[in-house]
Amino acid sequence: MKFSSKVQRCGLSPIRKFHPYAEAAKAAGKKVYHLNIGQPDIATPAVCFQAVRDFAQPVLEYAPSPGIPSLIQAVQGYYDRLGTHLEEGDILITTGGSEALQIVLNCILDEGDEVIVPEPFYPNYSTFVYAAGGEIRPLPTTPEEGYFYADRKRIEMLINEKTRAILVTNPGNPTGVVLTPEQSRMIAEVARDHGLFLIGDEVYREFVYGGEELASIATFEDMPENIVVVDSVSKRFSACGARIGALISRNRALMNHALKFCQARLSVATLDQVAAAALYTVPSDYFNATREEYKRRRDTVVSKLAEIPGVVCKCPEGAFYLMAKLPVEDTDDFQMFLLTEFDDNGETVMYAPGEPFYATPGRGRDEIRIAYVTKEEDLARAIELLGKGIAAYNAKKKS
Amino acid sequence: MKFSSKVQRCGLSPIRKFHPYAEAAKAAGKKVYHLNIGQPDIATPAVCFQAVRDFAQPVLEYAPSPGIPSLIQAVQGYYDRLGTHLEEGDILITTGGSEALQIVLNCILDEGDEVIVPEPFYPNYSTFVYAAGGEIRPLPTTPEEGYFYADRKRIEMLINEKTRAILVTNPGNPTGVVLTPEQSRMIAEVARDHGLFLIGDEVYREFVYGGEELASIATFEDMPENIVVVDSVSKRFSACGARIGALISRNRALMNHALKFCQARLSVATLDQVAAAALYTVPSDYFNATREEYKRRRDTVVSKLAEIPGVVCKCPEGAFYLMAKLPVEDTDDFQMFLLTEFDDNGETVMYAPGEPFYATPGRGRDEIRIAYVTKEEDLARAIELLGKGIAAYNAKKKS
Repeated sequence: MKFSSKVQRCGLSPIRKFHPYAEAAKAAGKKVYHLNIGQPDIATPAVCFQAVRDFAQPVLEYAPSPGIPSLIQAVQGYYDRLGTHLEEGDILITTGGSEALQIVLNCILDEGDEVIVPEPFYPNYSTFVYAAGGEIRPLPTTPEEGYFYADRKRIEMLINEKTRAILVTNPGNPTGVVLTPEQSRMIAEVARDHGLFLIGDEVYREFVYGGEELASIATFEDMPENIVVVDSVSKRFSACGARIGALISRNRALMNHALKFCQARLSVATLDQVAAAALYTVPSDYFNATREEYKRRRDTVVSKLAEIPGVVCKCPEGAFYLMAKLPVEDTDDFQMFLLTEFDDNGETVMYAPGEPFYATPGRGRDEIRIAYVTKEEDLARAIELLGKGIAAYNAKKKS
Repeated sequence: MKFSSKVQRCGLSPIRKFHPYAEAAKAAGKKVYHLNIGQPDIATPAVCFQAVRDFAQPVLEYAPSPGIPSLIQAVQGYYDRLGTHLEEGDILITTGGSEALQIVLNCILDEGDEVIVPEPFYPNYSTFVYAAGGEIRPLPTTPEEGYFYADRKRIEMLINEKTRAILVTNPGNPTGVVLTPEQSRMIAEVARDHGLFLIGDEVYREFVYGGEELASIATFEDMPENIVVVDSVSKRFSACGARIGALISRNRALMNHALKFCQARLSVATLDQVAAAALYTVPSDYFNATREEYKRRRDTVVSKLAEIPGVVCKCPEGAFYLMAKLPVEDTDDFQMFLLTEFDDNGETVMYAPGEPFYATPGRGRDEIRIAYVTKEEDLARAIELLGKGIAAYNAKKKS
């Protein structure tokens, strides 16, 4: 039986290969601290569950393909509070941000078309781009520069006749990099000047720890044809399991094409849309509290990392991830060591090895991604274990 | 801005063009009977809502990418009751049957690869096949033969070096055609003998009105490499809005590829999976009651249609749709007449015009699809209106 060339280019989740070793370590009584998982531990606001409990219709019917009106209105209200108005037709509710991205890529990519993506990037972007027949053109960065990529020349160097879009995650997963409003504007202007889409994956929008707020590219009302926003309730309201996202653009031709895919898959889960609409009524002090909590966690991780000799990590400004360069050659091999050979008082640690976050072959092998979505004391101990592990691993390598 | 050639091949839902006219008719006080909508009016079993109310976790977390264990086990139990055992790895929970179909098509189709589909077929198949880069090779049928397609020679005539799969909806949407176990087996053998996948969309499996039960192709355990089943709770439990489906195959290479797409989109909505697992505990007399209800509705529609001169409709054996050939040239034009010019005591009727169910240009223009998902007395009146409408339309045409 023959499989498609596109699925053969895609990979299984790289973290899976460590799963049996983690299970074996746990079965042997070892405690494993997880820095590899992006599932926050923050409680989902109770209105979410209450809305679902209050659902009183006798038939769990299809929702309208573009989304239920109350959720679309809730998203409109949210953007109004960000200072920019969206029409109803500028919003399509999707099954998570993931589906929004799949849909827009299928709307714009033919075989061989290119999307510029700052590297390192969220590995699932590869699967979505490949499934749509496209190619990722990575925009290189370095750990030493704190994964900075907002440079007009570096971006324009990568544009050719096959380029269709620039895709940025802001705040960044896995890097935590946050664009200044000026940097966002510059990238949007590059897109506009070259007739490209700028797709902004802004699902971590609320998680910015500097003073300045993130400027959503949705506020660039003077570039309606170019701007596309991928949004989600997953991180914003710690409701990852709701799978409610949105595709947002003022480009009506794009939205008309996107609606074809929305109609083909009929609708997004009805109860989850009702729950998501309720989540948008959460007062803004909810965001302040979670933001402060994540900021403390980030500070803990960054300060503990700074104590480990040879680690390169500039303090990231947003999301709840960071990339760090370790003083080891191969973080895959080091992860295996941590699970199978190392422990400190019966404890060890898991992270996400860096290579899958890169499209450029060979890049990222000495880097890791850390998600700081667990309690501060656990994070502190996890980074301590990382430091002790590095020392033990390098001592073993030398011996 | 440039859009992909694949999205440009896809169309918006054809029924949308009548929406403003239906709204105008309603605004003018006309009552419109809907034979065009596939949303059943059967109450969703209460366990569905109860399971969601009982959900007591504080964080609405991502579910595992292949599905939550309790739902996978529920699906296993359901197939055990059908007489065939599935391993856990043979099942991937998906966002509706729609996602299952999208995933399998993306796993097997490259640019220009072909899928054989009996025509008329569910129009969204086109969007899914085109989005995956493929082509539909229609297997023609006629209203006069009751849309019969289970003929080995007719199927084999369509197979060439680009053919990758045969896709059948059984029971059929839009035709209501049900394959006998022998016919299903024959088609599966054609697939096996030619190295093709047989994709069985069996989401209407419980809705069979003859004596004999449908043989799910999942029971053909001797062809593990070829058989793929698309399944869903939508129609089975009148839970369309849950968006819970499943991709089922014993072809482990296929399932391993499919898992890549499942991992990339992270998970299926958690609460809906919990609800779906509960739905599988519904006792089998639930199916008997709904089956009897739909059978009565089918009989009403078919007998009333038989009273209209010139209508061709063989009594379909399953699902809750039928196709009928009308004594008019263009059912699109006739639909417009029904909405804008016709009424009987202030009432009129909508159906789904037949052309979008065909890939072959020009086919289906004198056909319609009827969904019998509303109350018997409403169906009877709707078909009466159809007959009166045909008489009025043809009288107007002659004048």
